[in-house]
Amino acid sequence: MQPCFKFAAIQIGAGTDKALNLQRAASLVAKAAKDGAKVVSLPEYFNSPYGTEYFKLYAEKVPDGESCRSLASMARQNQIYLIGGSIPEADGDNLYNTCTIWGPTGDIIGKHRKVHLFDVSIPGKIHFQESEALTPGCSYTTFDTPFCKIGVGICYDICFAELAGVYAQKSRCPSLTSGEKCFGLLQNYAEELWSKKKDESDSYRCILLLTSRCKVLVYPGAFSMITGPTHWELHLRSHAVDNQIYVVGAAPARVATASYVAWGHSSVVDPWGTVLIETDEKEVIVQADIGIDVVRRCVERDKAGEGADCGLPRDQEYLERADMVERSSTLGIYAN
Amino acid sequence: MQPCFKFAAIQIGAGTDKALNLQRAASLVAKAAKDGAKVVSLPEYFNSPYGTEYFKLYAEKVPDGESCRSLASMARQNQIYLIGGSIPEADGDNLYNTCTIWGPTGDIIGKHRKVHLFDVSIPGKIHFQESEALTPGCSYTTFDTPFCKIGVGICYDICFAELAGVYAQKSRCPSLTSGEKCFGLLQNYAEELWSKKKDESDSYRCILLLTSRCKVLVYPGAFSMITGPTHWELHLRSHAVDNQIYVVGAAPARVATASYVAWGHSSVVDPWGTVLIETDEKEVIVQADIGIDVVRRCVERDKAGEGADCGLPRDQEYLERADMVERSSTLGIYAN
Repeated sequence: MQPCFKFAAIQIGAGTDKALNLQRAASLVAKAAKDGAKVVSLPEYFNSPYGTEYFKLYAEKVPDGESCRSLASMARQNQIYLIGGSIPEADGDNLYNTCTIWGPTGDIIGKHRKVHLFDVSIPGKIHFQESEALTPGCSYTTFDTPFCKIGVGICYDICFAELAGVYAQKSRCPSLTSGEKCFGLLQNYAEELWSKKKDESDSYRCILLLTSRCKVLVYPGAFSMITGPTHWELHLRSHAVDNQIYVVGAAPARVATASYVAWGHSSVVDPWGTVLIETDEKEVIVQADIGIDVVRRCVERDKAGEGADCGLPRDQEYLERADMVERSSTLGIYAN
Repeated sequence: MQPCFKFAAIQIGAGTDKALNLQRAASLVAKAAKDGAKVVSLPEYFNSPYGTEYFKLYAEKVPDGESCRSLASMARQNQIYLIGGSIPEADGDNLYNTCTIWGPTGDIIGKHRKVHLFDVSIPGKIHFQESEALTPGCSYTTFDTPFCKIGVGICYDICFAELAGVYAQKSRCPSLTSGEKCFGLLQNYAEELWSKKKDESDSYRCILLLTSRCKVLVYPGAFSMITGPTHWELHLRSHAVDNQIYVVGAAPARVATASYVAWGHSSVVDPWGTVLIETDEKEVIVQADIGIDVVRRCVERDKAGEGADCGLPRDQEYLERADMVERSSTLGIYAN
């Protein structure tokens, strides 16, 4: 495990020309990598306008479509881990809002289909029903890097603190104890382990692998102009503090003429809840150093509130938080 | 169930004269009740200075000590539900940081012993080890009013989102399925039910009673000058939004000469995360109308993130949130 790495969120808006969207994304990803980023995230729907009327038109197969080939190339050419924001995915008759994740070799190493589809109807303000066009995903998605394990959610997934809790191993993962449903959709090595399991110890090893604590969560997310100002930063900060991890929000740049106008405000928040960097709505690369050595496991924090550990001292947590305050001030922050 | 009631948090600082502390508390509680509050909360350690050196000196038996008798009288005379902030409780050789809860008849209807003791050591900034003097509690604490069920935590308990999740019935309560440990410390009617249970249906009924959704959480809490500015409002708001409930933070007024200087900033936050009222550090009664009709159960939100409900539409939640936005603007807010 390396103690520190640079994370970049590419805040870019998508127009109607898919090839141009991919080309501009590639250009900014290369720039971020050149500036030292080792893990890069694109925003939700970076290859397509955001709207139920566009999803089918822009949908591709994963991992063989045009956008995936482009993402593989970006990761390989720049030798980075690339969280491919999201694209509309076609699988049989179903469409998904899907984040693909790519390693420095250009191989796909993870795939997250948005679990919580965004359906909203506030009379006179906003009406958007993602579920009219999409099928929800049904998996937890994490991937390993030389720096740490990273968990992925898409946009409205961030509104469900349970997901962050599972990624940070704070909450228990019910599916992990009840069946194969979740495993079958997770990382390759976990799937392999699960399919080959011969006895309970294999099953337990598999659970350990899957639930080892993420130290960074990434949410490619296009919050709306209603929910953005009220809840985007709140969710980023509370997940960071509640789970004592870094949280990255990778938002698209605002396209004022789009049918769905996004809030923007890509951000990186540290485990103390400090917003290391938050941008506005314009196109930009948001970069921050992630200090993995500041993220340490709290003493049995995942048992807290269950009434099961009442005799345990709680001091370690605040000691660690205090430590983070000192360290956070030394973290470099960049915006290009 | 009544649709709306006024909640008051008494922001008052404690000096070294216990009788005077009780007298001033009684005066402000009476004023809040006269102004229409039906549920009133005092802050953490309202009868004693905050410091490990004071706990034993000020500790009393519950419910027979001087402070409890005073609280019973305040509740009965003003015909209110009174959350008695907290006091140092003596029970055998142990001391606890204890919140007592009183009904309009003057009867004690609940007791919460702080579960998560606050131990902090930031060199050059703050050193406080509550666990040097106190024993942690080990219970969930809720009580019923004609308006709604209310959950109680004390100060550092707010840093553990799991507790709020259990109160709001979002999370499962592990102890409730695993034994009597938790039940034995909860409300009287639940204890009775549990002790008299003859079969599984009684046990199930008991679980239902205990876990029915709280619509308001109250945290008497004296955050520090370090953690107050960074995390107090964040926790209040995130618990409110994550659980779609009202959250009240009842802080002491700041006593600049005290060994432990508190942040103050008593607040009431609505389920949309809007801070209905937040005060500064001075003595004040913070009041807000709690609109119970705006707190509605989300569609199976407690299953979200578990991968178990992927086919469910998620729209109802945002519809309800939208509804709350409209209603919040009509809520009356008062500060005296």
